Parts: sequence; C-alpha cells; structure tokens
Amino acid sequence: MMFIYEQVEDRIMKFVVAASMTSYCRRFFGKRAYFLTNEFHRHFFQKKSIFASLIYLPKLFIMNKIVERLVALRRLMHEKGIAATIIPSNDPHASEYVADYWKERAWISGFTGSAGTVVVTLEEAGLWTDSRYFLQAEQQLADTGIMLFKEGLPATPSITDWLSQSLTPQSKISINPFLFSVSMVDSLRQAFEESGLSLVTQYDLIAPLWKDRPPLPNDPIMLFTVEHAGKTTQEKLAMVRDVMKQKKVTRYLITSLDEIAWLFNIRGNDVAYVPVAIAYAAIDPESATLFINPQKVSLQVADALNEQGVSIQPYNGIFDYIKRLHVGERILMDQNKANFALFQEIASHCQTVPATSPVLLMKSVKNETELQGIRLAMIKDGIALTRFFIWLEKEIHSDALTEISIADRLREFRAQQPLFQGESFGSIVGYKEHGAIVHYSATPESNATLHADGFLLIDSGGQYLNGTTDITRTIALGTLSSQEKLDFTLVLKGHIALATAKFPIGTRGSQLDILARKALWDKGMNYGHGTGHGVGHFLSVHEGPQSIRMDENPTPLKPGMVISNEPGLYRANQYGIRIENLVAVKEAEATEFGSFLEFETLTLCPIDVQAIELSLLTNQEKDWLNAYHGNVFALLSPHLTPDEKSWLQAKCQPI
Amino acid sequence: MMFIYEQVEDRIMKFVVAASMTSYCRRFFGKRAYFLTNEFHRHFFQKKSIFASLIYLPKLFIMNKIVERLVALRRLMHEKGIAATIIPSNDPHASEYVADYWKERAWISGFTGSAGTVVVTLEEAGLWTDSRYFLQAEQQLADTGIMLFKEGLPATPSITDWLSQSLTPQSKISINPFLFSVSMVDSLRQAFEESGLSLVTQYDLIAPLWKDRPPLPNDPIMLFTVEHAGKTTQEKLAMVRDVMKQKKVTRYLITSLDEIAWLFNIRGNDVAYVPVAIAYAAIDPESATLFINPQKVSLQVADALNEQGVSIQPYNGIFDYIKRLHVGERILMDQNKANFALFQEIASHCQTVPATSPVLLMKSVKNETELQGIRLAMIKDGIALTRFFIWLEKEIHSDALTEISIADRLREFRAQQPLFQGESFGSIVGYKEHGAIVHYSATPESNATLHADGFLLIDSGGQYLNGTTDITRTIALGTLSSQEKLDFTLVLKGHIALATAKFPIGTRGSQLDILARKALWDKGMNYGHGTGHGVGHFLSVHEGPQSIRMDENPTPLKPGMVISNEPGLYRANQYGIRIENLVAVKEAEATEFGSFLEFETLTLCPIDVQAIELSLLTNQEKDWLNAYHGNVFALLSPHLTPDEKSWLQAKCQPI
Repeated sequence: MMFIYEQVEDRIMKFVVAASMTSYCRRFFGKRAYFLTNEFHRHFFQKKSIFASLIYLPKLFIMNKIVERLVALRRLMHEKGIAATIIPSNDPHASEYVADYWKERAWISGFTGSAGTVVVTLEEAGLWTDSRYFLQAEQQLADTGIMLFKEGLPATPSITDWLSQSLTPQSKISINPFLFSVSMVDSLRQAFEESGLSLVTQYDLIAPLWKDRPPLPNDPIMLFTVEHAGKTTQEKLAMVRDVMKQKKVTRYLITSLDEIAWLFNIRGNDVAYVPVAIAYAAIDPESATLFINPQKVSLQVADALNEQGVSIQPYNGIFDYIKRLHVGERILMDQNKANFALFQEIASHCQTVPATSPVLLMKSVKNETELQGIRLAMIKDGIALTRFFIWLEKEIHSDALTEISIADRLREFRAQQPLFQGESFGSIVGYKEHGAIVHYSATPESNATLHADGFLLIDSGGQYLNGTTDITRTIALGTLSSQEKLDFTLVLKGHIALATAKFPIGTRGSQLDILARKALWDKGMNYGHGTGHGVGHFLSVHEGPQSIRMDENPTPLKPGMVISNEPGLYRANQYGIRIENLVAVKEAEATEFGSFLEFETLTLCPIDVQAIELSLLTNQEKDWLNAYHGNVFALLSPHLTPDEKSWLQAKCQPI
Repeated sequence: MMFIYEQVEDRIMKFVVAASMTSYCRRFFGKRAYFLTNEFHRHFFQKKSIFASLIYLPKLFIMNKIVERLVALRRLMHEKGIAATIIPSNDPHASEYVADYWKERAWISGFTGSAGTVVVTLEEAGLWTDSRYFLQAEQQLADTGIMLFKEGLPATPSITDWLSQSLTPQSKISINPFLFSVSMVDSLRQAFEESGLSLVTQYDLIAPLWKDRPPLPNDPIMLFTVEHAGKTTQEKLAMVRDVMKQKKVTRYLITSLDEIAWLFNIRGNDVAYVPVAIAYAAIDPESATLFINPQKVSLQVADALNEQGVSIQPYNGIFDYIKRLHVGERILMDQNKANFALFQEIASHCQTVPATSPVLLMKSVKNETELQGIRLAMIKDGIALTRFFIWLEKEIHSDALTEISIADRLREFRAQQPLFQGESFGSIVGYKEHGAIVHYSATPESNATLHADGFLLIDSGGQYLNGTTDITRTIALGTLSSQEKLDFTLVLKGHIALATAKFPIGTRGSQLDILARKALWDKGMNYGHGTGHGVGHFLSVHEGPQSIRMDENPTPLKPGMVISNEPGLYRANQYGIRIENLVAVKEAEATEFGSFLEFETLTLCPIDVQAIELSLLTNQEKDWLNAYHGNVFALLSPHLTPDEKSWLQAKCQPI
C-alpha cells in the first residue's frame, strides 16, 4: 500500500495505490506529490483522520489558507483532548453587528455572511447558515473541506444532533465562553448531556492561531448630551438602583453595548450601524463602573462621567472586579445576553440572579425628549426620502440605475441632513423578484438594473443624533397588474389596521399581530416575518423587549415604546411588498372599562397611491391615508423647495 | 381572674372578669354559663388558644355544628403537631363539579359555594372566595369564627402570605394529598419554604371526623356506543400507545374523569352536569386498566370493556397497581391534574414524566361522528330554544315570570327533546342589572321578576347523548335605549369577526381573541372574561387544552376542536350582554402561503335583531347574520309546527 498526497492548485488530493504500482504512478503526479509507504503513513496517521494527521507534516505542503487554519486548529484540539469546536458569529456582548476582532467564524471558514456557525471535529467541519447565504456559503466554502448545512431544510440535522451522531460518548466539545450567552451554554449542555458528550468552556482555541487578528476598535467615545437623551446618567442610575432594591441584589452587571450606551449617555463607533462602544458595566448601590479601554475616553468625557457618579476601569477589569466581589453576593445579570466567561467567574463565589436586564425595559420606553428627537429625525429622514424619490422618478427612464447605485444615492441624500451619523442598517433595495427575498442585499453579481416597470422595495434607515429611523416603501416603477395592486392594497389594509389599533394597557404585541395580517389571511395569504420590532433612540434599529409577532412575547406594550409596523407580502420569483412605518405607543383614554393605548405614527413619507386598488379600501382606511398624507405634507413641506413641495403635494393628494 | 364561658343560642361567649366580681356576675348569666377559676383555666388553656383548648372540655358545651367540627379538627391537628390545615374545593380528579363525598370544605365551614378554600390554624380560621360568593359566604360563615377573605381585593392577603405571617417558622401545614394536584403542591411547597414552613401531605384530617360522610356515588356506568363516539376504545388506545412510544414511557396514568370517560367510551352519573364516573385509569403497552367500584359495572359492561382490552380493578386498586410497578419505570402523568397522593406513591420508586395528558388533546379534536352528533344535538337544542322563546314572548306580559321560573321552563323544553340527558351547567338567567354579574345564579332572595322592558341574558346548555351544547342569547324584552343597542351591536360585531376568521395552521386562540374585542376596544370598552372555551362531546361543557383568551395559551387550534365564541359587555348595575355560539375548527384552504383554517358555527338559534343598531353593521356583517339566520331556519323549521315555523321565520328575516 502506498499513500500519495498531491497539491493541485491550492487543494490537497489523497490517493491510495498498491505499493507495486508506485513507479507506474509516479509519472502521473507532479513535483508536489509525496509518496508515503504504508509503514510511514501508519506511523503518522494511525487512528487519526487525514486532516488531523496533516498536522504532523507542516512543511510538506503549502495548503490553502482555510485548510491551513483548520489543520492548526485540529492540532490544538488534539493537544487539549478536544473532539469538536463550535465557532459562532457572536461577540461577548450579544451584539447584532460584531467588531472584526470577534469574527472568529469568518476567520476559520472564510465565510463572511452575517449569520452562521462553524463546527470543526478532528475529521470533518461544517457551516450551518440560513437560506439568505446558501449561495454565498457554497462559493466561499469551496476547497475548504467545510461542508454546508442548509438550515431550515427538513433533512438538515441540528448542530447538536450532528455532533451527537459524529462523536463517541465522553467526547469533549469546546466553545469560547466569551462568544456564548449563559442560556446558550445551558441549552447546549443539556442537549449534549443526553448523548454523553461534555462541554469545555475554558479555551479560545482561535486566539493563539489568529496571528494577524484585528485589534479591538480604538475610536474615542462621545458624550450623548441630555439635550438629546432627556435624562442624565444620574437619573437613570437612580431608576436602576430602585429596581435593584426591589430585586434584592447587590450588583447588576450589564454586557449589552446598547444598554451601556443608553445608561451612561455615551455613543461610540465600534461596530457597523449601531453607535455603541465595546464595554461592560457594573452598578452597585453606591457606585457605577464603566469597563472600557481608557484610551477611548478623553479626559473631558471621563470628567463628565465621574460627575454623574461613574468611574472608568479597563475593559478586562471587569474580571478583577468580579474576583473582588464578596462571597454570596446576589448579582443580577441577563442570562440571555451575558457571556458565559463572565458568568462562570461570578458563579464561583456569588449567587447570580437571572432576569431580563432592567435597562432593556427602561431603554425601550422613550422619554418625551427622546420622542421629540425622533419626531424631528423623521422630518429630516422624510426630506431626504422626498428628494431621493424625486430624483429616482426622474432618473428611472435612463435605464441606468441599479439596486446598488440607488442605495448609494439614498445614503447621500440622508447624509445631507443635519445630525446625520450614518445608516441604521445596510439598505435592502429589491427590484421585482429580488423584493421577494426578505433579507436581500444586492451584490455586484445580483445587482439588478431598474426599468420603468414593476415593484421596487426599499427598506432603509438613518442614524441621526436625535433618533434612529427605519422605513420601507414599495413603489410602482410603471403600470401594475391587478394582482400586484390587490396584494399591495391588502398589505396596506393590514398596515392601517395596526396603525389605528386601540387596546387596553397590558396588551402584548402577539395579540395585535393579527390586525396586520387579517386582510391577507382572509385571502389565504401571509408573510413569514414579524410585524414589528422595537427601535432604539440613536441606537440599535432592532431592540427589545417588545415586538409584534405571531409568536408569544410576554412583554406588554407601554406608552413611549417605539416599534415598527411592517406587514408585507412576498411572491417568490415575482415581487415583494412591504410597507413600514415606525410608531410610538401612547395613552388613548381611560374609561370605566380601563385605560387604553394607541399608536402615533412617526415616519413621514408618502405611500404610493398608484399601487392601491382604491375600491378595496373602506372609508375609514381612506380617512387614515388622507390624514397621514396631510400630516406628511404639513410637516415636510416647510423644509422643501417649491418644486419639491409641489411634487410632495401631488403624492399626498387626498384619495 | 375568673373565666366565664356561656352558650348563647348556638354560640359560645367568653368573658374574663376579676375574681371578686364572680358572685356579682353570676346573676347576669344563664344556666349554660361555666365559671372557671384562673388556676383551672390555666391548667387547661395554658399556651393554647381558646379554640384549641376547648378540645379538653368536650362535655361542657353544646356548640354550633361548625364550631364543634373546628374544635374536633384542631384537637386532631394538635395531636399530630399540625399548625394549619388547608381544605380546598377539589376532588382527587381535578373535576369542575365535585361529588358530595369530597366536599370537605363545605363540611368544615358550612360554606356551600362552588369555589373557596378554608384554612384552619389552631387559633384562627379563614375562607378565601371570590366576589361571586362574598354575600353568601358572609351569611354562611356567621357564628362560625371563620373569617372571610375576599379574593381579588387589593388588601386581601394570599393564603400563603397569610399563613407565612400567622405561623412561626418550622410550623407544619397539612393538606389532604388527594385534593391537591402535583403542581399545586409544588407551588405551595415553594411558597412555604421561603417562610421556613413545611408541608405535610400524609393526612386526610377530615376523614376521621366526618362521621356521616356521604358515600361515593354508586350509580352504574353505561357504555357510550361507537355510534356516538365514532372510535372504539381499542382505536383510541392505539393512538394513546403511539404517543407513549414517542415519549418513551412504560405507563400512562389518567386521573381526569372526562378523559377516562372519553377513552373507555363510558359515561356515568356521579357528579352534577358532567356525565362521568369516578375512576382512575392506567395504560401500558399491552393492557389497560379501569379502576372503578366494580358495583358500578354490570357484567355486560365489563364484558364489553374486556373485549376492548380493558380490565376492571377496584377504585383504590390503583395504589396496589402502583406498588407493583417495576423500579425505575417511566410513568407519564399530567401533573396539573394528577393528585399528589398518587404522585408520591409513584415517585417513591418510579420516574414520573410530566406532560399535558395526551388524551386531553385527542379528546379536544372531535372526529367526524362526534361532530355530526353535535350538529344533530344543536338542532334539538335549537328546537327547544325556539319553543322556549315563543313561550317567553307570550308570557312576559303576565309580569309573573322570574329568573328561576323561566330557567325551570327552559329545562323542561330541553327535556322534551330525544337523547336529552340533563343540563350541561346551571343556567345563568340574568335580568337587567343581574346580567352584568358574569357568574350570576339566581337565588330565591335575588330572583327578579321579568317585565316587558330591558335586556334578559340567558346562558344555558344541554347534555344530549350525541353532544353537549352551550349558548348565550341576550334579548330585548321591550324597547332599548340607544346605548343598549350600541353595546349589543358592538358585541355582535366581535362575535361575527371571530366567527368569520380565517387563519393559518398553528394559530393560537390568544392571537384571535382581539377579533372578538376590537369593536369594543375601538370605543374604549372591554369584557373581563375569556372569549372561548373548549366544549366536550357529551362530556364537560368546559374542556381544554384550547381556549380563546387575552392570556397566552400555547395550544394551536386544530381542525375538529369545538370552542365557544362568546364576547360580552357588562355595565355594572345596568345590564349585561353576551352572544355565544359554539364553533368547530375546520380546514379552509391550502395556498402557496400555507394551509388555512376557519370556523363552522354549530349553534342554531336566532340572534335578536331588535337589539341591533343596523347602521353600524357592514355589508359583510349583515351578510353573515342573514346567512346564519338562513341556516338556522333551514335546519330547524322542518321540525317545527306551522305556528312555530312562522315565528322563527320572522326572527330569521334577512336584514
């Protein structure tokens, strides 16, 4: 038996031939082929897989980058007795957007999509990702040996099922405890225990291998003045300490970057789209500590924070802080968000009190200053959108616009507005059938050219110093079919039903969700995403705890919460429709039957009347649309040129 | 110091006077007064409360019945070192209606309402009950020394809080383990542990005291033929064993009487309104055992059950059965329903697997035979209701009808129908302001006389061999105010919105609930009860697991489920409105967006058009009402006399 390894381009091929064939075979292989005798091969490879074994032959081959990394990882796993490693997309702060420093999954696999988990065993490797990324993953995983597991398909095993089947009992699975929340670790541990596997939570196996790892972002943080925030940090800390008293806890650790930004009235520039800074925080009855790289904090900012009762410690100082906690202290932390590294440090000598982070709920209820700021941001956003749509209407006939080029143009229009800080997420611009892909993001390959025909769906948002926006408009670029108009009108009916809802205090989003779907359900139609998500105040465009979804969420809607109203309809390979405004919950009236709430629609931008089948709207629905358009025109027109104003007036004409 | 005990009528009065006053006092007291010196008193009463101490003076006094029982209970508690006893309204089967044998709470307190819990400590006693029973409880508790705790008032402590405050740490609280479910014991134990109290679950302290306790009902059970049931017991057992296999359990214990009746196709006569028999059941992969008093089972019934693979054991034989289980067996039981006596017996050597009882879900999904039976029962119920309303319309002007007399008459009309077996619950007949009391039940004292004026609310139902009915109609006995008509119309709009709902498979009742409330919410109105409850097939008029409520219930609605649609509106001291039909979930259509369900309205009885403000109904709502009335007339009229037919035709006239 003879084993032949050959490098062909950047892949390694393995061949097994009879020893007698060796000289015959030599003529078919190139310079970079290595012939190993059976004994030599067994010596190195006995009981090990080919990839695991390659670690003993580092100089023999020049491998492709990803294979090289996998080999190095497996060598380390082998040294530590680890049978599998799970490498997620997360950071230690349960962030939606992650700093490059934590992109371990992209580094190990080469797959750069926003969602996906890599699992590496000594023999195999797999990437689990969802339908948005099937194509991209296939391309990026080529020649890496990493298999693609397509999430959401019936035949695809879960990571825990796959590992349970691949590994022998007693095997150890390693995770980086910084990249998993306490609850994630709980559920992994439970799943693995059933199969006799154990979870190891003490290594970051990527760290020693990733030599050119990008540094943690080092940008300075800025103070978010009370003029925009509405409440000082001192006032917010007093609210937090009230909750701590009720819950009888001695400390409260916060790990979410947007919660920290809100509580300390700071903003940063450390990740895409969300103006947060990488930090931890700890509150006790007397003091509050912000754990952040001191280089990011100017003297002036540090002084201002000190004045509010906040002291600064280095980012990793949180671990020293935890070590110094008194034995038996009761520590509040949100186990859905806090990373497991922090938790295991605390749990060694203190009692952790699990609860939804109190700041999450406080932050979701906007104060009057924040709400007023959002209303002003909506005017700026509305002006930018008006100018963008005027431009689009003019340029569409050039047949030269593309999904990507108009997204760039929209960003430019927003950037002309005062207080603009950036986009709140990457715009979704989907023309015709691309609109039916819910999380579509145009790539140079997919980038469609627009023509005066069919539906164009644009979901975009801006970050302004006084508020975060998120709006979807679907517009007709030309004449529509009757089915297109029917679909659009049903989505609009749902949007209006939710916008005009009145409901008793204590109502949850899951109770209201049907209002946005009923017109569709009546016709046997539906959409596969939630109807509403919370929106931050110059913070994350997606925030909890409230939502409007079919799934149960126990959070009642409270006055001051901002949430999106975004029903849609998607016909695969044809078009997508979504109409999204942001709304704020406010008090409606108190009667003998209780106190009632309603929504104030915040977003200011016309809805395309051309796309409506008017005969399907009730008088109340027409009244709402006319009142909405009246408000859009009243609030935007003072800021527009005469030409812009007359364009908007036409779009806001009563129906 | 001298202690004087005197019996005044049936109460015992205690007086404390100076010893020097003894002879002066003697002249004021009657024959049944006992004067005890301080020494004598201390000898008996030292460190004990008066009630606890009276146990040493059994011959001295003839006490009132309830005080006597409390004294006897406290003597027993004292002997056993028990500081408090909790006596609930339950039976060992988590039944809604309880056989007299288990009415320990009524026996110990004299309070006969359907809901209430008595707590007895060595010093005090209290009854916790809800607003329906405040008046009745006050009257029935007079002279018993039992305090009334009004549930739902902010100042009322919970039982666990009250006991935690009343008792010293380490005290023992006893409950009869037969009368508490496993989950109830869990939550009690948790609450008490926080206060250092412990729960004792081995005594029925009432049993040895209750000398004239009524026997367990001894009526024979009957077979429920497959002609009505649609599936044989063998078929049902096969379904059950499939679930057991999935859940990897060796046995399944069933304690709910209606689940047992459904599974074994038997019906009984042991409690009010629900045709069930007192029994337990155990299923294993090979055999099925019905634990029931053999005297209740005729030879013929026993043979028939045996043929279906069911063997009969005595009722208490379940405990021998449990003792014989193999160590470590996995036993499925519904811990929300199974009594704790059973559980502690099992848990001593087997593993209990908690889950919602699989039969509960199977029973809730009616098969085609059951549905067809219910449709036929609805015709009989509709005929009875038609005759009743014709009679009522004629007799109302006599000014001699009362809430109670018309309830009796309605029962008589139902009893004339074939297959009628009894009422499915005690009718709620509420005239004018009584209609606003949601669980109103007319008493001889409250019994209102009806006049040709205002709203009359009638909520009633029948048990027929082929189905159970439950219907509420609110009718105008005379001219209505515009507010009355507005309110009625809003309730009707909610009823229609729910009746016409179409929704995707997987939808929960909590998502649909708003449809029934939206017309009311829009006007700042609401009702304080659920919108829909499951209904059994010739079984309990209230069954789970499905519901339509504001509260979350994770059970999705499935084709074949029968559920009520009963929005309402209640204006305290004025009137109440409720419109209730039963509906069945059925498949609507399958589209590219998924499979959709809808409701089939089952109940057949006109809705009072006189009470509708027609201008408020949309065309679709009118269409539904006309179609409904068309269906009512088409299905009922063939069974009516010409006079009855023309009355119904007028009531079903299109609007």
